[in-house]
Amino acid sequence: MPELRQNVITKDWAIFATERAKRPHEFIRPDRQNDRLPAHKPDCPFCPGNEDFLGAEPFCIRDGDRWRVRVVPNKYPALSATGERIRKVEGIHRIISGVGIHEVIVEHPRHDLTPALMSIEDVRNILIAYRQRYIDIRKDPRIEAIVIFKNHGESAGTSIEHPHSQIAAIPVVPHQFRVRIDEAIRYFDDTGECIFCRNLRDELESQERIVLESEHFVAFIPYAALSPFHLWIYPRRHVSSFDQSTDAELADLAYTLKTVLAKLYYGLNNPDFNYTIRSIPTDETYTDYFHWYLAIVPRVSKSAGFEIGSGMYINTSMPEDSAQFLRDVDIPVL
Amino acid sequence: MPELRQNVITKDWAIFATERAKRPHEFIRPDRQNDRLPAHKPDCPFCPGNEDFLGAEPFCIRDGDRWRVRVVPNKYPALSATGERIRKVEGIHRIISGVGIHEVIVEHPRHDLTPALMSIEDVRNILIAYRQRYIDIRKDPRIEAIVIFKNHGESAGTSIEHPHSQIAAIPVVPHQFRVRIDEAIRYFDDTGECIFCRNLRDELESQERIVLESEHFVAFIPYAALSPFHLWIYPRRHVSSFDQSTDAELADLAYTLKTVLAKLYYGLNNPDFNYTIRSIPTDETYTDYFHWYLAIVPRVSKSAGFEIGSGMYINTSMPEDSAQFLRDVDIPVL
Repeated sequence: MPELRQNVITKDWAIFATERAKRPHEFIRPDRQNDRLPAHKPDCPFCPGNEDFLGAEPFCIRDGDRWRVRVVPNKYPALSATGERIRKVEGIHRIISGVGIHEVIVEHPRHDLTPALMSIEDVRNILIAYRQRYIDIRKDPRIEAIVIFKNHGESAGTSIEHPHSQIAAIPVVPHQFRVRIDEAIRYFDDTGECIFCRNLRDELESQERIVLESEHFVAFIPYAALSPFHLWIYPRRHVSSFDQSTDAELADLAYTLKTVLAKLYYGLNNPDFNYTIRSIPTDETYTDYFHWYLAIVPRVSKSAGFEIGSGMYINTSMPEDSAQFLRDVDIPVL
Repeated sequence: MPELRQNVITKDWAIFATERAKRPHEFIRPDRQNDRLPAHKPDCPFCPGNEDFLGAEPFCIRDGDRWRVRVVPNKYPALSATGERIRKVEGIHRIISGVGIHEVIVEHPRHDLTPALMSIEDVRNILIAYRQRYIDIRKDPRIEAIVIFKNHGESAGTSIEHPHSQIAAIPVVPHQFRVRIDEAIRYFDDTGECIFCRNLRDELESQERIVLESEHFVAFIPYAALSPFHLWIYPRRHVSSFDQSTDAELADLAYTLKTVLAKLYYGLNNPDFNYTIRSIPTDETYTDYFHWYLAIVPRVSKSAGFEIGSGMYINTSMPEDSAQFLRDVDIPVL
């Protein structure tokens, strides 16, 4: 019998379709041409030697005269860095001028790496860049929310090979944030506890869906995972805004994120994926009810008309099985 | 300057990224191998001659001894047709047994057609099958919502070539429905008018985003379209539940749907797409605030980490331009 499970935060239902269930190894990606990339590609705008192509560099981590991580403006930004935030009402329509910040984090000088294959130190540098830009960008009074995300692979929406992630700072609180926050407030008002802290406590007790535990973070498959190998990394400490993470936490997150991504890389043969950091809108720094976290969505299944028509997802892999599979993946020591 | 526009029903924001804007013809799909399908494929389970493969046939339209449209159970259903609806609460988790109906509408005996290339009469038969199954399935007291949808092409989530659509009847009201209904009620309580009727009235007045008008339906690009060529077909008459459509309305919808899909087919070279019918949960038949409609989502762009992280969409085509482009597409008379 299939089972419907509800996401505790978004209230969305996922259908666990036992009739269509696949074993975790059935999600292993077939080898593709072009899987071997060169370490350096002379015409890649993110490769060393082409630094001038992208102009201003709001942040950079250097090691002597070589850079390790660079933040640059997006060459084709979705939002305009200059201009005023203007809100208009036209009949039933609501419009806001598209001001905001859209930047690219070039994660490593090497063209052929991905965080799964980088050193923990490299991944820590990426996270430090995220935090620094978050701290700086939130000072802009036009900004309401900061979305940090990574697209890896073509089905995850990128055609750029060089390892990179993005920051989009937007002039409005997305409706999706409002929905999550409303639910979190409702739970807090009802119980006096943060729903995320509660969720984490339950997961640690049951252990069934845990993929990795570290000093400051826990990686697990959500109970109502929308798709196979959908993963959450929660900080153990109740922190609402990502930029409030300490140095020790970022160092530990680098280990956790790298290890989880390496488990996906080696276990599923470099699947396409997205990840995003879910943080509180920038007007707030600390709340009792909201807890930031990182969500990873491997692109091992496709959403179709049913998902569009219902907002529900059909998942062909039980979270407990995916978690077991990932726990068992050994990764090489770099 | 980019522009953010808010969907009046879902309250989701779309970013119209003028820096990345594409002309409508840039979305024309390149030719693919395998674009020419055979009219009959002996090993296709939906082709005539293989009727026994799928078992029971809850509905069929015949023409002499040939069928025109068949409804069959899904061979790999996401939901189980037998069993009780049981709701469980386990700590913070909510679970419902996965009972429901999951059927396939085989749209035509021919393997190589798609509604864009069918006669209006053929499309009318498909719509009659949708309505009949909707009417029958809603009698099942375990069912809360009926989702009718079509996946066309691989990026829209199907690998089956034979023209078909699906009905999924689910034992819970999806959270997405609740959100839309709450907004519609709020608008009705505030103004005494259905938000969809109001939206339609405004679109007809402005004409900027209209693609096609027929006696009973209007096809237009939403003001805050989430993706290029995202389309809505609204009935002019205020009807909450799809199965309340009259014969005259279905005949006219057949013309409208076929024509719009043909405009996409000829204008964009057979793009992959999904469509879905958005109707009210089955416990209700008529309300003052909800108005059913059909939504078409061509898969001409990819959603990535930004969309996952914000619930917002980046659209690289202005709705007014997409509408103009589609209005201008001539389709051959069959």
